[in-house]
Amino acid sequence: MHGLMQDRPLSLPMLMDGMEHRFSRKHVTTTQPSGTVSASYGDVAERVRRLAGVLEHLGVPAGARVGSFGWNSQRHLELYMAVPCSGRVLHTVNHRLFADDVAHIVDDAADDVLFVDRSLLDVVRPLLGRCPSVRHLVVMDDGSPAEPPADPRVHDYETLLGAARPVAAFGSIDERTAAALCYTSGTTGRPKGVLYDHRSIVLHAMTLLMADTFAIGEGDTVMPIVPMFHVNAWGLPYAALMAGANLVMPGPVMSPERLVRAMETCRVTFAAAVATVWRGILPHAGDADLSALRRAVSGGGSLPVALSRAFHEKAGIPLTSSWGMTETSPLVCSARVPGETAPSLTEDERITALAAPGPPTVLCSLRLVAEDGSPAPRDGRHRGELQVAGPTVAAAYFGGSPQDSAQDSAFTGDGWLRTGDVATIDPFGVVRIVDRTKDLVKSGGEWISSVELENEIMAMPDVLEAAVIAVPDDKWGERPLACVVPVPDAGLTAESVRRHLAGRVAKWWIPEEVIMLDALPKTASGKFAKAALRRSMTATDG
Amino acid sequence: MHGLMQDRPLSLPMLMDGMEHRFSRKHVTTTQPSGTVSASYGDVAERVRRLAGVLEHLGVPAGARVGSFGWNSQRHLELYMAVPCSGRVLHTVNHRLFADDVAHIVDDAADDVLFVDRSLLDVVRPLLGRCPSVRHLVVMDDGSPAEPPADPRVHDYETLLGAARPVAAFGSIDERTAAALCYTSGTTGRPKGVLYDHRSIVLHAMTLLMADTFAIGEGDTVMPIVPMFHVNAWGLPYAALMAGANLVMPGPVMSPERLVRAMETCRVTFAAAVATVWRGILPHAGDADLSALRRAVSGGGSLPVALSRAFHEKAGIPLTSSWGMTETSPLVCSARVPGETAPSLTEDERITALAAPGPPTVLCSLRLVAEDGSPAPRDGRHRGELQVAGPTVAAAYFGGSPQDSAQDSAFTGDGWLRTGDVATIDPFGVVRIVDRTKDLVKSGGEWISSVELENEIMAMPDVLEAAVIAVPDDKWGERPLACVVPVPDAGLTAESVRRHLAGRVAKWWIPEEVIMLDALPKTASGKFAKAALRRSMTATDG
Repeated sequence: MHGLMQDRPLSLPMLMDGMEHRFSRKHVTTTQPSGTVSASYGDVAERVRRLAGVLEHLGVPAGARVGSFGWNSQRHLELYMAVPCSGRVLHTVNHRLFADDVAHIVDDAADDVLFVDRSLLDVVRPLLGRCPSVRHLVVMDDGSPAEPPADPRVHDYETLLGAARPVAAFGSIDERTAAALCYTSGTTGRPKGVLYDHRSIVLHAMTLLMADTFAIGEGDTVMPIVPMFHVNAWGLPYAALMAGANLVMPGPVMSPERLVRAMETCRVTFAAAVATVWRGILPHAGDADLSALRRAVSGGGSLPVALSRAFHEKAGIPLTSSWGMTETSPLVCSARVPGETAPSLTEDERITALAAPGPPTVLCSLRLVAEDGSPAPRDGRHRGELQVAGPTVAAAYFGGSPQDSAQDSAFTGDGWLRTGDVATIDPFGVVRIVDRTKDLVKSGGEWISSVELENEIMAMPDVLEAAVIAVPDDKWGERPLACVVPVPDAGLTAESVRRHLAGRVAKWWIPEEVIMLDALPKTASGKFAKAALRRSMTATDG
Repeated sequence: MHGLMQDRPLSLPMLMDGMEHRFSRKHVTTTQPSGTVSASYGDVAERVRRLAGVLEHLGVPAGARVGSFGWNSQRHLELYMAVPCSGRVLHTVNHRLFADDVAHIVDDAADDVLFVDRSLLDVVRPLLGRCPSVRHLVVMDDGSPAEPPADPRVHDYETLLGAARPVAAFGSIDERTAAALCYTSGTTGRPKGVLYDHRSIVLHAMTLLMADTFAIGEGDTVMPIVPMFHVNAWGLPYAALMAGANLVMPGPVMSPERLVRAMETCRVTFAAAVATVWRGILPHAGDADLSALRRAVSGGGSLPVALSRAFHEKAGIPLTSSWGMTETSPLVCSARVPGETAPSLTEDERITALAAPGPPTVLCSLRLVAEDGSPAPRDGRHRGELQVAGPTVAAAYFGGSPQDSAQDSAFTGDGWLRTGDVATIDPFGVVRIVDRTKDLVKSGGEWISSVELENEIMAMPDVLEAAVIAVPDDKWGERPLACVVPVPDAGLTAESVRRHLAGRVAKWWIPEEVIMLDALPKTASGKFAKAALRRSMTATDG
């Protein structure tokens, strides 16, 4: 027997109602080199309707991919709404990838049109000759002096918008229609595309509004420092539009000083970035009035407790961890101290607890799978590969299908995503990531966690960054090698690192080799590029 | 182009994962005359699986209706999960309706099995002879001495549960499958059934977890005083299971003293009831330690500011209003002070603001329709009929279909629900209910709001309750008549009521007639039964 409720799809046009009525006075502020630009959601909604008219005018078919090369900005927000609301697919391209990968991605997605910030024209220029699917290139002038290519396919964003016929009504969209396409950052092999549907984006935004997740509400001013080309800026733009929160977009101005100044000036209440960016912000956090900030989320990799503690000292609140992947929309876990344990914790224990990814959102089911395929107990001690299921989790990669994804090592035969992370889950549901399956060090038949070693090393005041990788060893199979970036002139030695570890980790975990480096290689999304490190170390060592 | 996300339905079995893993230690506490009974969600989940086995054993077909006559209790919670998770439809019956209506409802729903609290056996006894669809009657022993009928169809709940084979895995359920059936309280005509699907119940529960709605989280202890036969206790049991909040169920023990004692003992953080029940609780609110209470929600009718203010004085927090209908799952609006206006409000202005229904949840779209069918502006002044759309809103009544619901006056031709309430919406999206369309008084061609008059009269310290109805008038068409229940021995006169109104409302609004009554007639859900009042007044007057 079927229920008799209204057949209203969970699709992005539902956000237009809030932008045009309840929240029309709320606004998005974009930081640009020349100053800040602000627009009300009412005005943005009108521009979204015009932008949809532009896509009509350019003859972009339904379901076609529209590529974007952009910083976090009001115009990028307009693309976030106009492209999927009009039935096309927004493909946000990570412009920091290698040129070859960028060309591969645009080809793989068969982008029909590209929208590009003027300051990123150099990344896009080579594509015009290489990517035959691209029929139009629309330049968004962000004040950069870069000269657009002399090519009949090139248009100016504002000129098109000014001439466009606004789309009066977005038709009803089946919620399983594709809305957005993001590629993984590809630490191994080619980047792979994840094709989100309207339903998964709306449901994901709903979870960000929940009290036990990010609790985003109308009173918030949300600043996604995480790029809009990185898993939809963790879904924050959609969540802010849904809740009626203001948005602050850092634009191309990503220096820590400017980020902190924008947080102060705009009275930002909620900000999110990867740990590396927070590390950069830290020295400036004490110079500004960040009293409006109620939550600072770190994601995209492990959050060192020492960093969170230092941020707490300067800004009055700790960083809080989160965990997710491109394949999971991305939010799966957000740090929180379960109610019963909270009263007994000291301040420092609470900060430590919030550096773990935390419990999952209400839409994600988790399971831990031991090496032999059996379920690992959720006792906070046993480890297993973390697997995820839910309506916000990918069933296949772009170009594949859910049916043949069983052949893909990222998916299990029974409909779960293999995360590639080794984790524990405690009885309160709190997830702690132990390592990437491929980053574990197997020494003498026993596992050593590179993440735990890194966190211990990064807790030293004289250490800026650390990465631990496995190196081949005749006797033990593998041994850990620590690559450490010291604070300049602090006089850190390999021996002092090893001494620090003694008593903090098992004796056989302590790396024989500790190498000092000026910097660590990073992926395009700011994570430690362990694969590159492993390659360079193997080249050096042997 | 379709997205490639997992095909995971929004259906109630997803709540089992939380009950059995993350929240298995959380608990439901039921107050019974003999004391309180507590069970962990882990144990409740096991009983849910056994109860699903009972339904198998009794041969209840998929999609069949399972009727419940029960107080708020752990067993009722078990029915809330086991019946829909196993593919049947839970039909919660309002046992306070007239016997004829109860029989009509059970017949209309064609209930296959009835579950009944032993203390409610007298309501169900007559049905055994009258309702041929009922094959089984399962008695839940709540300590009442009532003797079960000697009938082969009668079973004992615990005996069945003890003998049952637990259902190990609930199959995947299409989210549009019917899950629950509730009937309207039928102030006019026969009660009508609303058939909720899994999707609408899950989405509705998600909205209750949002920071700007009820913000229900794992740290909460939720007490639904609103009955479980009344629109799924406003969705609170499902929201609590989803968030991992504890539940406190008042059972048959509904005296204000006992409710307050349970709130104190169980450290209730969130409680919800109709205004009439809060009015009864008020005199006892000062005798208990309610310091854990963070939110007390009033719904099911207008919330007088004076009542909220008095509650604030005694319990430290005001009551907060909400608005919804059986047809809307029910929550559409929940009181909140929009961020920008909050800082400028005095404490008393804030309490007044929270007595309005407030802005809608993220899943509900609203529109105001003026008498001539045109959209009324959202300026906080213009009035219109409130219409609602969304995936948690009914498209038709049970027995009808969305296709022929256009013939039903409750639904518009273009897919919106007519609420029958006249409202304003201000630029912040805050809804204020002016009146029921049929309760408005049309005097000399102008509308008089009976709700506003009632609220003004109920603000008098010597008034317990007041209802205003229209009575025919030769000169003006209609005139308002005020029916007032005074505080005993306070010496309230009709003239003092009229004097109080002078200056507070337009002169021509002041009722010529003010009648003192010992009590007002109420509907089964505790609202003023204006239809009955109108009938009795018309009978008296002419």
